[in-house]
Amino acid sequence: MNSSDVSTPEAPLPAPPSYEDILAAADRLAGKAIMTPLLESHALNARVGGRILIKPETLQRTGSFKFRGAYNRVSLIPPTERAAGVVAYSSGNHAQGVAAAAALYGIPATIVMPADAPAIKIANTRGYGAKVELYERSSESREARAEVIAAELGATIVRPYDDSGIMAGQGTCGLEIARQAEQLGAHLDALLVCCGGGGLTSGCAIALAEMSPQTKVYSVEPEGFDDTRRSLEGGERVANLPGQESFCDALLSPTPGALTFSVNRRLLAGGIAVSDAEVAAAMAYAFSTLKLVVEPGGAVSLAALLAGKIDARDKTLALTLSGGNVDPETHARAVAAGSALN
Amino acid sequence: MNSSDVSTPEAPLPAPPSYEDILAAADRLAGKAIMTPLLESHALNARVGGRILIKPETLQRTGSFKFRGAYNRVSLIPPTERAAGVVAYSSGNHAQGVAAAAALYGIPATIVMPADAPAIKIANTRGYGAKVELYERSSESREARAEVIAAELGATIVRPYDDSGIMAGQGTCGLEIARQAEQLGAHLDALLVCCGGGGLTSGCAIALAEMSPQTKVYSVEPEGFDDTRRSLEGGERVANLPGQESFCDALLSPTPGALTFSVNRRLLAGGIAVSDAEVAAAMAYAFSTLKLVVEPGGAVSLAALLAGKIDARDKTLALTLSGGNVDPETHARAVAAGSALN
Repeated sequence: MNSSDVSTPEAPLPAPPSYEDILAAADRLAGKAIMTPLLESHALNARVGGRILIKPETLQRTGSFKFRGAYNRVSLIPPTERAAGVVAYSSGNHAQGVAAAAALYGIPATIVMPADAPAIKIANTRGYGAKVELYERSSESREARAEVIAAELGATIVRPYDDSGIMAGQGTCGLEIARQAEQLGAHLDALLVCCGGGGLTSGCAIALAEMSPQTKVYSVEPEGFDDTRRSLEGGERVANLPGQESFCDALLSPTPGALTFSVNRRLLAGGIAVSDAEVAAAMAYAFSTLKLVVEPGGAVSLAALLAGKIDARDKTLALTLSGGNVDPETHARAVAAGSALN
Repeated sequence: MNSSDVSTPEAPLPAPPSYEDILAAADRLAGKAIMTPLLESHALNARVGGRILIKPETLQRTGSFKFRGAYNRVSLIPPTERAAGVVAYSSGNHAQGVAAAAALYGIPATIVMPADAPAIKIANTRGYGAKVELYERSSESREARAEVIAAELGATIVRPYDDSGIMAGQGTCGLEIARQAEQLGAHLDALLVCCGGGGLTSGCAIALAEMSPQTKVYSVEPEGFDDTRRSLEGGERVANLPGQESFCDALLSPTPGALTFSVNRRLLAGGIAVSDAEVAAAMAYAFSTLKLVVEPGGAVSLAALLAGKIDARDKTLALTLSGGNVDPETHARAVAAGSALN
């Protein structure tokens, strides 16, 4: 989708996933995905004056939550069609998720990735056996490229977020958060979700609306790419302004998804934006105190908390660390810069 | 203890902790320590051809398993004595464990630390409210320094490993591993434990001997500091040779503890030694694939596995990642060097 889509008329939306669709996705993912733990840090609790429950999807298969949606979506392709393989476009985490899901089904995968994606993401995607086609982020349409490839191969396109099967898969993360919080006897006042196109956010919001309706769900985005936050404020989808930059490579989608926003508009309490400096500080905190490797886009929720953009005092909050696929040099630079800010 | 202790006659040993002592320690630690998860990585399983269950004590309160033993030991001091405070000597992880335990009891703590300890360990120990006394590793006896301080203050010395209360606390890590493996339906063929003075190793061995007697327990140490491995082979405690070096700062104890070795001699299947290069490769693997920050001494078990020093094919193994307190520069250097080896 490019930004002009936002103001043009669109076909009627399909239905978003139901809570039952998320339960069905959880059944499909059992034994395939990792049930990541819900972690707690006394040091973090003390720092913010509340109780913080951390969902480290960094520890998920392929290093991000994206495997959940990808595997669920690939499972939903009718077997006769599935045999021809899948095509996806992605800056890297969805790429790895689709590649790993395709490998489990023994089907071919072709992934269209930006040439400037982190090296670790390109290498891992190839490592799962996928064919990677690089494109220039500034001059080419990845969607068009993917559609040509899919047509040639007779393969199915697995979109990164604006798809019911993807959203249901990502929603299993929210399902686990709600169940694990309950096991801990914790009543979640709020959940902060790292947000790009809105797949994880909307999936988690659907799960929480059913299981923990008192929990306020917030999207967290990089400044300049806070299209969901601005869309929530205005009540309709708006695109990011051109020329923005952020090192949160996983969260640079141009607009909210149509289907994801139809859910998020209804279920989110609001949106939060964080600066790259706040993200670096969060990555440094994750390194030094939580001992977790978090990529820039995966650290925005923690950044929002540490920067005081949500009040945690005497509250119980959950947050996602949505991915950990970061090149060592980028990580070391962010930790060094962020340590100076903590 | 210095190396001359090994060959001189000693007082009769006190009794090591029983399995029941470990259960009692677990009760004391409930709600104080983190029940760290038992993690699994499809990528790691595929690499070694077996099932690997990872106990990340990096995620423990204070960033290493040492809080377990420290808190249990401080709990066992009679309250009237405890009020005068505690004194410990430690290269850094025991220091933080004792400092945090003392803070929870509201008692003063003085920690004797080497001047060349990682900055993060010194800063964190002070951060928990302890008074830090630095000593020169090459020219001073930390035990003598601690004894003078303890005598002046009327405080209790909390030894780093050769103490039943410490060993019982560390044994709760083994207790959790056995219980969590059982919940996963996993039958552990072996457990690899990061080993310095042998507190964690012996505590885990006692727990496993009761709960999972078929599991072979191995100590893993840095080359040149593989005193436990060599002592196990010879059947009696031997000291490391002078002049050895390793960047595994947490595991540089000169000899096995008398009490810990009395257990380890009886219960361990053997000892393994790894090189600093193998440790760096393991730290890099933990960063890039497991997304975990592991300090050098905390990565020796993973290093032994990845270096093929134990056969994991078609087996189920557990291993400890015993700590994650590492300076960013040391971590980045090890990840860069280790990545080239992976």
